Amino acid sequence: MWDRLLTNCNIATMDPAVAGAFGAIEDGAIGIQDGRIVGVGRRIDLAGYRAARVETLGGAWVTPGLIDCHTHLVFGGNRAGEFEQRLNGASYEAIARAGGGILSSVKATRLASLEQLVEEARPRLHALMRGGVTTVEIKSGYGLDTPSELKMLQAAKRLGDSEAVRVVPTLLALHALPPEHRESRDAYVELAIEDMIPAAAEAGLAVAVDAFCEGIGFTPAEVRALFHAADAHGLHVKLHAEQLSNLSGAALAAEFGALSADHLEHADEAGVAAMARAGMVAVLLPGAFYALAETRKPPVDLLRKHKVPMAIATDLNPGTSPILSPTLMLSMACTLFRLTPEEALLGMTRHAAKALALDDEVGTIAPGLAADLCVWRIGRPAELCYWIGHPGPERRIVAGEDA
Amino acid sequence: MWDRLLTNCNIATMDPAVAGAFGAIEDGAIGIQDGRIVGVGRRIDLAGYRAARVETLGGAWVTPGLIDCHTHLVFGGNRAGEFEQRLNGASYEAIARAGGGILSSVKATRLASLEQLVEEARPRLHALMRGGVTTVEIKSGYGLDTPSELKMLQAAKRLGDSEAVRVVPTLLALHALPPEHRESRDAYVELAIEDMIPAAAEAGLAVAVDAFCEGIGFTPAEVRALFHAADAHGLHVKLHAEQLSNLSGAALAAEFGALSADHLEHADEAGVAAMARAGMVAVLLPGAFYALAETRKPPVDLLRKHKVPMAIATDLNPGTSPILSPTLMLSMACTLFRLTPEEALLGMTRHAAKALALDDEVGTIAPGLAADLCVWRIGRPAELCYWIGHPGPERRIVAGEDA
Ligand SMILES: [Zn+2]
Ligand SMILES: [Zn+2]
Repeated sequence: MWDRLLTNCNIATMDPAVAGAFGAIEDGAIGIQDGRIVGVGRRIDLAGYRAARVETLGGAWVTPGLIDCHTHLVFGGNRAGEFEQRLNGASYEAIARAGGGILSSVKATRLASLEQLVEEARPRLHALMRGGVTTVEIKSGYGLDTPSELKMLQAAKRLGDSEAVRVVPTLLALHALPPEHRESRDAYVELAIEDMIPAAAEAGLAVAVDAFCEGIGFTPAEVRALFHAADAHGLHVKLHAEQLSNLSGAALAAEFGALSADHLEHADEAGVAAMARAGMVAVLLPGAFYALAETRKPPVDLLRKHKVPMAIATDLNPGTSPILSPTLMLSMACTLFRLTPEEALLGMTRHAAKALALDDEVGTIAPGLAADLCVWRIGRPAELCYWIGHPGPERRIVAGEDA
Repeated sequence: MWDRLLTNCNIATMDPAVAGAFGAIEDGAIGIQDGRIVGVGRRIDLAGYRAARVETLGGAWVTPGLIDCHTHLVFGGNRAGEFEQRLNGASYEAIARAGGGILSSVKATRLASLEQLVEEARPRLHALMRGGVTTVEIKSGYGLDTPSELKMLQAAKRLGDSEAVRVVPTLLALHALPPEHRESRDAYVELAIEDMIPAAAEAGLAVAVDAFCEGIGFTPAEVRALFHAADAHGLHVKLHAEQLSNLSGAALAAEFGALSADHLEHADEAGVAAMARAGMVAVLLPGAFYALAETRKPPVDLLRKHKVPMAIATDLNPGTSPILSPTLMLSMACTLFRLTPEEALLGMTRHAAKALALDDEVGTIAPGLAADLCVWRIGRPAELCYWIGHPGPERRIVAGEDA
């Protein structure tokens, strides 16, 4: 006897083993036991099973819970003030001179207590959850010294421990150069390698290590040194690459068997081919593209040609992409990047799970995986991409329980 | 003794009589009696008043309830299927040949019963309300015969009667040519003038008459004839103008003292000046601009120069702008059209009220106006524009009551 049977629903399994778009099963049912999926199929084929709770969903669509695989959800303060100043005519330079930009987030994050960081982030996490998110990656990267980076990772852990959502923490060690290292960048990179990575690994507070490889960020040589250290500590790597220019970051990440390269607006075919060979995921961030009014789009056709799985994420962060709606990313993936609705939904389910090395656990509705599900009152899966600013699912189920 | 006192809040009154950005009053209080605002000011200045209910808002910001002054919220079916087909490579022509486009919405709307139209629209209305909307304009325009247009207007009325939101109905008489009049467009315009307008006016189901003045819509001469009929029946007029080309629709609308001209991407200075002289509102629709991937923006600098008030609306419709989030329009007004946060918020409060001839009733927090309010857990009003896909206010108050 199963714990739970959801029946009379349509299922977008996103399972490649199920033929057809979205791996869809119409008039289906899902069996749940001990928080995991134990049966998926047509209602008629599961009619012989019994469950302690049987719920009829009245023809609603069930998808995997959404996975937001790239966020900077934890930070002190916000930058609405400089957003307003810019629209009132202030230049980036004037704002930077007045202490704005990323360093204002660093300052506020350093000043905040762990509890403050958690409580400031909680409503943002709630917004993502209301939009259907059941797994979220959270990066550090506004601390830029070891205690502050660890504080951010602890805040991410506390959020995961106290909310019905899976949190996957990433140490974004090379995000920006902190003010005290403006004249000593080598010493900062050394700090990241010698101190931050060992500390985060030892505390078990990070699954992966990330960096911002860009002219205004860190060089490929610096990233390479960081990734060697991550490897040595058994941590995955991933990279903010090719957002504003092409430094061959995607190929560098591929050398290290990175989980993903993220942004990729300026990636070229060599980089994409390297990602394909390394089995990496391309994480596309249409919200940052929107917020920065970018015009150069990621090379979707090349990614398709080389069969690199595409994930979609919010990039939720205080500067370039203060996004609170995961469903809006499905719309923007289609409308701005011309993904198909199926590609977009794969991007926040199975492919996002792969970007977090969790594809054996979540992201697909298939026996053996965790029962993380969203129930949507829609007529077809494409509606999740069609509506602009959809408020979220009717129900969100995490590990088999309504959340 | 007042019914209610909201205190310990910051207030974005949007009242031009209150100096400073957003007409802001910090550490303020609002008195409510019989559903109307009776006192607004600094907490200290209202300390002498007593109320049956006193609520301390803990430093939250209070704004006027949001006003969405341009929607096509009532329609049968949706067009997620053709959205998906287009992204999978189908051409507009192929979709039109297969019965897609606006005429598929007309067909579904005609087939739907009044009850079906109401119940299909209700979750969309709920999404707008959750986002902070307390007043919403709803246009007809997918019926295209008198009984179907009246059915749409009745659906709008039922929604207003059954939900805590003010609904302002508009007869969009000249939206598209229905299939049965493909060879007899004069007869259709005559039907609108001789039958739809009198019927809607007599039934009290419309406040205003609207049209789509465009090469693919209706000519200025046809609109002029329609507006004469609207005038004769004592109805306001407004116009979809200059969206895809410049037919001098704004100036035509100004001749008739229209409430607003809407879209305006292709408006020129003569049109803007005419709008200014006529005291009209420019309704900007950034969601349609986003969804259609337009590049030509409305002439915001000209509108500022001529002091034409700008409103912002969702244009919620099944074809070009299936938007469910009013706060996203605040973001898009700033990010896509470069409005300041104050202009954007005026666009969904006081200026939107003016576009509906309701500025003596709603849209500003001032004594004598209806107590339609939103309570937001934010640090400054600009956050409403800064966050992308903000889920909505903590509380929504309509006519003095929590809704
Ligand atoms: Zn990022
Ligand atoms: Zn419209």
